[in-house]
Amino acid sequence: MTSFPRRIALLGSTGSIGRQTLDVVRCFSDHFRVVALAARQNVELLADQAREFDVPVVACFAETPEVAEAARAALPGVLLGEQGLMEVATHPDVDVVVAATSGLIGMHPTLAAIRAGKTIALANKETLVMGGHLVMEEARRASISILPIDSEHSALWQCLRGEEVGDVRRLIITASGGPFRRSSLDELRSVTIEQALAHPTWRMGPKITIDSATLMNKGLEVIEAHWLFGIPYEQIEVVVQPESIIHSMVEFIDGSLKMQASLPTMHLPILYALSYPARLDTSGTGLLRELNWPAVGRLNFEDLDTERFPCLRLAREAAQRGDTYPSVLVGVDEEAVALFLAGKIGLLDIATLIEEVLEQHQPVTNPDVPAILDACAWARQRARRVFEQRYGRMVQ
Amino acid sequence: MTSFPRRIALLGSTGSIGRQTLDVVRCFSDHFRVVALAARQNVELLADQAREFDVPVVACFAETPEVAEAARAALPGVLLGEQGLMEVATHPDVDVVVAATSGLIGMHPTLAAIRAGKTIALANKETLVMGGHLVMEEARRASISILPIDSEHSALWQCLRGEEVGDVRRLIITASGGPFRRSSLDELRSVTIEQALAHPTWRMGPKITIDSATLMNKGLEVIEAHWLFGIPYEQIEVVVQPESIIHSMVEFIDGSLKMQASLPTMHLPILYALSYPARLDTSGTGLLRELNWPAVGRLNFEDLDTERFPCLRLAREAAQRGDTYPSVLVGVDEEAVALFLAGKIGLLDIATLIEEVLEQHQPVTNPDVPAILDACAWARQRARRVFEQRYGRMVQ
Repeated sequence: MTSFPRRIALLGSTGSIGRQTLDVVRCFSDHFRVVALAARQNVELLADQAREFDVPVVACFAETPEVAEAARAALPGVLLGEQGLMEVATHPDVDVVVAATSGLIGMHPTLAAIRAGKTIALANKETLVMGGHLVMEEARRASISILPIDSEHSALWQCLRGEEVGDVRRLIITASGGPFRRSSLDELRSVTIEQALAHPTWRMGPKITIDSATLMNKGLEVIEAHWLFGIPYEQIEVVVQPESIIHSMVEFIDGSLKMQASLPTMHLPILYALSYPARLDTSGTGLLRELNWPAVGRLNFEDLDTERFPCLRLAREAAQRGDTYPSVLVGVDEEAVALFLAGKIGLLDIATLIEEVLEQHQPVTNPDVPAILDACAWARQRARRVFEQRYGRMVQ
Repeated sequence: MTSFPRRIALLGSTGSIGRQTLDVVRCFSDHFRVVALAARQNVELLADQAREFDVPVVACFAETPEVAEAARAALPGVLLGEQGLMEVATHPDVDVVVAATSGLIGMHPTLAAIRAGKTIALANKETLVMGGHLVMEEARRASISILPIDSEHSALWQCLRGEEVGDVRRLIITASGGPFRRSSLDELRSVTIEQALAHPTWRMGPKITIDSATLMNKGLEVIEAHWLFGIPYEQIEVVVQPESIIHSMVEFIDGSLKMQASLPTMHLPILYALSYPARLDTSGTGLLRELNWPAVGRLNFEDLDTERFPCLRLAREAAQRGDTYPSVLVGVDEEAVALFLAGKIGLLDIATLIEEVLEQHQPVTNPDVPAILDACAWARQRARRVFEQRYGRMVQ
């Protein structure tokens, strides 16, 4: 990676990670310059960001003509559609691309950025879960680094700093356990949307919050860790750490463990990915609250119950099968979470739908991007059909 | 450091660390060869060790003529006296010297080993506490590494692996808190020797066990950490972690913390120092019990009360004053612990003696080894005199 100031392209600037990335840039304006921004449809915020950070290249994906028109009005010279995202991701002035879009939209631009030799700071889960084999192969070919922005993967990456991957015995990903850590199977059956959206330690968007409640989130993180660090699935475990202070750990072959800790914050993993291999001093910036050890009091560790949280088991199974199974996992989970958020199915039905659709899938071996997106689209459609067949009578 | 097999000289082979070093060598006989052994007076064990590991160079310090004679009988060709230790420490066949003697006896041989270009795996506290300025200067000059064997310093060293020392905000040394973690000041006044020797998590020799009960041990570790890692005292803190699972932590300037963990064991820090930068696979060796996270359950963190444990404060004050004050600290602590173990003073009197003798000391600036040893001897003598004046009437 180049020295400072680093020139950043930010894909997904109006989302949670995008906004927090700009918090980090605001605190370290000598170190980072935003040279390109892209968002999906929040034109007003995008325009504010472009103005505040004086960003020369701005793109709006603009799913509807109305959004496109608003973007043109608010941002003269704005780039539109997927072509706009691609220009942001591959712009010659860019050193590092922060891939913080949600869902599938980031896959093409991220691969294009890799091919253009950009360092990738990756917050988007789907890209690696569905296309890990493509992303890592392209990264190897282009000799660029994929730097994780997730707190868990940032923790693993920090613990592996200066270490040999061959010396790893186990990666241990921590999970808060979500809001239903102590709920019985019976209680899980009647969980409300409001209960599921009330995460105990992290504030995130609705989709990822439900994925945290079902622990699908951890399943996706296991798959990401596999691709990021090249560690077999059998050597990646999950343990519940309800306080979300220990963000993950690495056990080495000699029996030594390293753990990374902070109060729950996304600012730190974002900063670490942007400043790596340097660390920047956050004291006085107000960006992070300091971790006071006696005040922490105690850290708990608990086993994870895959009977109550079958999504983690299903994610592991899809990962082990490989091919297009992880893409199906992502597609049916998106659809199932949407059905849950619409009040049409219960929380436990998410896993039921996933299991059924995975069983019906005819995989494609070593899929390219179109095959991945096809499998994902098939999974969403099939999930809706299974829903209609099984639950159709329950709704009008 | 050279590749494997590494040729080891072991100073203090019959003590606790010495014996555990040989456990490690026994498990990894392809990686390590013991080429020289030295002990103080346990001739029988020394002879057994020399036979088992087929060691060509053996020295016995032999404080009395009887021990020297026994050594000559059991070990033909044995080297005697300090000259013997020096030959072991500087032998041309040696790559790494494990300095595991207790007390002052190791200082001259350790400095000689550094000058001879040997890597030092250092378990002896006194060498760095009293002569840190000399040891680190000689190490710099000889371009050799001082590798810590203490569990706390090994933890810090592992957390610093791949990191820049300039990126450190704080070193946080963990303390079990010893057997009197929850005792009141009143209860501390009437502690028995047996109570003080019953450490909750670590099995060690009597001197270091009492130092753990008074927390002098942590004070000495703060001083060692200062010299090993070049971190100012203000940036070195101590926190109580009663389970002794987290062996220490490093907080970086960005607010990220790294911690190193294992079940309490000295085998791991010994192995890490001997194998560094490699890590060797301990599975199947029986050397370490695996840390099972859900089974750990919880980790507690507590503040350290320097009112009940004044030795930590006294150690910090002696360290900040520098010069010969740390040598006085070591000397008077040795004497005071001996008086406590002889039933002549109470546990809290140890700090009282230390404080009084430190106050009476006339320091020598930038002391060499003779000045260090003089200050230490003066402190022991002065401690006995203060004891006689203050407590003399209490014993016959």
